[in-house]
Amino acid sequence: MTNALTYQNKTSPITLAIDAMGGDHGVKATVSGAALCHKQHKDNKFLFFGDKEQIENAMSRYGSLQSVSQIVHTDKVIAGDEKPSVALRQGKESSMRLAIDAVAEGRADAVISSGNTGALMAMSKMVLKTLPEIRRPAIASVFPTKKGETVMLDLGANSSCDSENLVQFAILGAVFAKIIKDQKRPTVGLLNVGSEDIKGPDHIRVAGEKLRMIEFPGIYYGNIEGNDIPRGTTDVVVTDGFTGNVALKVAEGTSELIAYFIRDAFTSSPLAAIGALFAGGAFKKLKKRVDPRFYNGGMFLGLGGICVKSHGSSDAYGFSRALLVAGDLVSNNYNQKVAEELEMLREREIMESLGESV
Amino acid sequence: MTNALTYQNKTSPITLAIDAMGGDHGVKATVSGAALCHKQHKDNKFLFFGDKEQIENAMSRYGSLQSVSQIVHTDKVIAGDEKPSVALRQGKESSMRLAIDAVAEGRADAVISSGNTGALMAMSKMVLKTLPEIRRPAIASVFPTKKGETVMLDLGANSSCDSENLVQFAILGAVFAKIIKDQKRPTVGLLNVGSEDIKGPDHIRVAGEKLRMIEFPGIYYGNIEGNDIPRGTTDVVVTDGFTGNVALKVAEGTSELIAYFIRDAFTSSPLAAIGALFAGGAFKKLKKRVDPRFYNGGMFLGLGGICVKSHGSSDAYGFSRALLVAGDLVSNNYNQKVAEELEMLREREIMESLGESV
Repeated sequence: MTNALTYQNKTSPITLAIDAMGGDHGVKATVSGAALCHKQHKDNKFLFFGDKEQIENAMSRYGSLQSVSQIVHTDKVIAGDEKPSVALRQGKESSMRLAIDAVAEGRADAVISSGNTGALMAMSKMVLKTLPEIRRPAIASVFPTKKGETVMLDLGANSSCDSENLVQFAILGAVFAKIIKDQKRPTVGLLNVGSEDIKGPDHIRVAGEKLRMIEFPGIYYGNIEGNDIPRGTTDVVVTDGFTGNVALKVAEGTSELIAYFIRDAFTSSPLAAIGALFAGGAFKKLKKRVDPRFYNGGMFLGLGGICVKSHGSSDAYGFSRALLVAGDLVSNNYNQKVAEELEMLREREIMESLGESV
Repeated sequence: MTNALTYQNKTSPITLAIDAMGGDHGVKATVSGAALCHKQHKDNKFLFFGDKEQIENAMSRYGSLQSVSQIVHTDKVIAGDEKPSVALRQGKESSMRLAIDAVAEGRADAVISSGNTGALMAMSKMVLKTLPEIRRPAIASVFPTKKGETVMLDLGANSSCDSENLVQFAILGAVFAKIIKDQKRPTVGLLNVGSEDIKGPDHIRVAGEKLRMIEFPGIYYGNIEGNDIPRGTTDVVVTDGFTGNVALKVAEGTSELIAYFIRDAFTSSPLAAIGALFAGGAFKKLKKRVDPRFYNGGMFLGLGGICVKSHGSSDAYGFSRALLVAGDLVSNNYNQKVAEELEMLREREIMESLGESV
């Protein structure tokens, strides 16, 4: 991900619909996050949904943010533990749902929420629908690697997937990587338990065969293994939502564990503590490279509108990163590009099937 | 894992059958590894299978190892990329197969190999069979965590599993953790995408329901997530071989990545380099805590004999760790304990079914 996300294509100002109440820190994080985003992109507009008084209070510190913001009041909030089915039925006036509606009705270009993931996915699917041809949306995110960054999907939207889902995820992921990593043809790997083509479950093998045959916006690399993700072997990693979710959390947990071991090691002796003092800058650099806030933002790819899930524990900086990613997807016409790719794929398939039968 | 693995129950000397030729470093690692193990356990006996001349040469440096070792010559070796099916048919005279045969025929108590995993599993299953009631063996290993160590299985023997497999893995893992962690009743978690009981795929939910009901050597904790593995939330983590393999490799890869970031950060400025000098001891401590060699040894649990797969890249120290784990399983009568647990479980099930029908 380039540090300064740049908006290239969309010329009219972008409007971001913000679920102001979602996440552990509510308006404190969402409004201040918008202020940080505003600093970088003066022409963005913000549409806040939530408790008007709270939002206004939080915004009072940011004069210039006020001039590009609008608030839609609601006192309904989707709880973090609300079941998606209940949120769907009873959450129609919630800040989350109203923000999604704004995208569906063309009043905003993207919706961003730190709230309940399941509810956000269910309501987005219901309201924004999926893109034509896309059977299931996927959650994608960006990971730090030895070579830069890697996009991985699905991170939890679909606990089991068939080969067709995986092929679609490859396309969704490749277009996303093109935009976010500014690469012509990103490499795409299928997460498996071995690199040989014959390895692993059938649906992965079949997806690999298909990806090898079709033309799509990426280059199919083949099977990759778990350690290839942090190595950055491919630009995009495709997997089912169960495996992706476990992989994401194992990576987070391992980072936490090593940070804990580092703290422990550097406080274990006076000499080490002196070393840590000298190495303060190095630690800062290290911390920055694995800062989960920088990589915040689970993109719901494959929906009829741009929807970004920010981590529930996001602070202002983390939330601003999610807003920047959302803006980047909008300004680069992500959904239009995916739709074009799918259309071309379908055309080729029809032509091939004609070629076979004629 | 206790640092000094102790043999408690088995009084007669333990004989370890070693595939001397397996792994990247062949006899160099296996013979020197046996010498390291011999230092800690003078009464162990070693049965080496492989090229007699090479083994004797490697052993010439270790006079006292010679006195407890026997060599069975063969010039056949299973290649690292040999297909398991081919190894089964054509590998009957290989060092790996002869070592397994020695366990089946009672000439050794455990077999240890750094060779081809698939071939080792296939041949072990064929020759040693599975324990009564056990439908599928699993590969288990031990991971460093915040709280000490956690046992995880399956790490790749079965790419898909049903609920019954997972329940059996829970029993296999709990007995293993009892021995290796010296705990009365280890906690067992099912790896899932959320902690709530209703989360995730059906077969995990069903396995959870069963584990909640049965008496087994562990305490069923419930669902855990990927980040719970390095946190050490439970003593045992149960999952299918696909997810387990990915989780293992993501953890390895993330450790590598952070080690790379640390090196980079500490060589990025003269000040940081000075810090690193002072902190040399801290780095050593850190390195030791995540030393993959210490955690070497994939245990094939559920087989009719003890079989330990050492990492292909194992050096002497790594191989000695695998030998120590194998010895620990033998001396603690692992297989007998598992068989007893399964027998008790079956008795209770029969009694319950009688209770229901009478």
